[in-house]
Amino acid sequence: MEQQKEKTTIVLFSGDLDKAIAAFIIANGAAAYEHDVTIFCTFWGLNALRKDESVLVKKNWLEKAFGWMMPRGANKLGLSKLNMLGMGPQMIKHVMKKHNALSLPQLIELAQEQGVKLVACTMTQELLGLKDEELIDGVEFAGVAAYLGDANQAKINLFI
Amino acid sequence: MEQQKEKTTIVLFSGDLDKAIAAFIIANGAAAYEHDVTIFCTFWGLNALRKDESVLVKKNWLEKAFGWMMPRGANKLGLSKLNMLGMGPQMIKHVMKKHNALSLPQLIELAQEQGVKLVACTMTQELLGLKDEELIDGVEFAGVAAYLGDANQAKINLFI
Amino acid sequence: MEQQKEKTTIVLFSGDLDKAIAAFIIANGAAAYEHDVTIFCTFWGLNALRKDESVLVKKNWLEKAFGWMMPRGANKLGLSKLNMLGMGPQMIKHVMKKHNALSLPQLIELAQEQGVKLVACTMTQELLGLKDEELIDGVEFAGVAAYLGDANQAKINLFI
Repeated sequence: MEQQKEKTTIVLFSGDLDKAIAAFIIANGAAAYEHDVTIFCTFWGLNALRKDESVLVKKNWLEKAFGWMMPRGANKLGLSKLNMLGMGPQMIKHVMKKHNALSLPQLIELAQEQGVKLVACTMTQELLGLKDEELIDGVEFAGVAAYLGDANQAKINLFI
Repeated sequence: MEQQKEKTTIVLFSGDLDKAIAAFIIANGAAAYEHDVTIFCTFWGLNALRKDESVLVKKNWLEKAFGWMMPRGANKLGLSKLNMLGMGPQMIKHVMKKHNALSLPQLIELAQEQGVKLVACTMTQELLGLKDEELIDGVEFAGVAAYLGDANQAKINLFI
Repeated sequence: MEQQKEKTTIVLFSGDLDKAIAAFIIANGAAAYEHDVTIFCTFWGLNALRKDESVLVKKNWLEKAFGWMMPRGANKLGLSKLNMLGMGPQMIKHVMKKHNALSLPQLIELAQEQGVKLVACTMTQELLGLKDEELIDGVEFAGVAAYLGDANQAKINLFI
């Protein structure tokens, strides 16, 4: 009889660099322990999954405004604390590099290599006007129902 | 033998509009899957349960100050990001309406219709001076012990 | 046969006074119900475990900068909302004292008396340059792997 894999889910609601790093460190740790891991990216958390280049898509003015105001991708996120007009993120990135810690884009890549399921919240996409082709490759698209299905089978469920 | 219903609990600590919306979307989703759902509103999260009209109650000056500084009800909450002196919440409300998404007051009403248990943290009430009659109808009153009792039987427990 | 104790884990990521108070109230409640409780303090949450006096340790300039910018200990944390240049925390502390609620330092002390396991995230220590001797006595030191081991056995897992 095959043993059921443990499951871990994370709702990544926050678009803060530090919180996204925490989410992906926990996710990669759980994946290393052979858990099935899902990160459901919703609201501002969806920005971590944006490609860092501009993608040509049709948007209305409000969608353009959201797209312009929100950080484009994992490398552009700010800090929840000590952001200091962008100096904080640079300091954190500097110490992480110095200590050979993986950057957020590297953590996301590692998560994908380890089979962590990255899910874009389709309701958020619709509200903020973020099109599928603006998000990094390999992302799945689903709603809250799919998240609840995963979470109900998981032992560790976090909202970040 | 009657099947035990699945349980989901959410601690709503945040008084941010976007986080409260996320909490109630998850809660309504879980309720649609026949979960017993509890939202334990504590600290700033209690503001989501305030009636939007002023209620005549006896308060000391500090309780009055808190009551005046904190948003009065689900329709007055600000955003955790891009609040921009209130322009952000208007933008979010506008896109939600345009996409026929339920507003926070409607999400709360739906939650009550679906039997989601809304609990006001009595310790927070005492500290911030929020009286029972200032909160919307149908709310229960309890402390952290009751929350822990629910959470310990639930598969999904989130802190938002 | 000895009955297995229930387990509760909290990741304390936030360095906000109000969130730390919520974390320790939940932890103390769970400990009162005989749960094995772990609080894993990571990122800004580690500041709650700092001693309030300055400790003479060797640091590079960036570690000194982080040490200087971040609040030194549970009594120095700010609020997530209504911080108002420090007036908010004073108001909260005032009402808590008036209602005979325990302060954060007292909640931490109670947690330690009740056997709540306080864990400092070693990766955060390294990144922010917080040395073992700068943290309060009785704290354990571990990484995300140890947290996941605890969380996977727990019924209640929260990220605060």
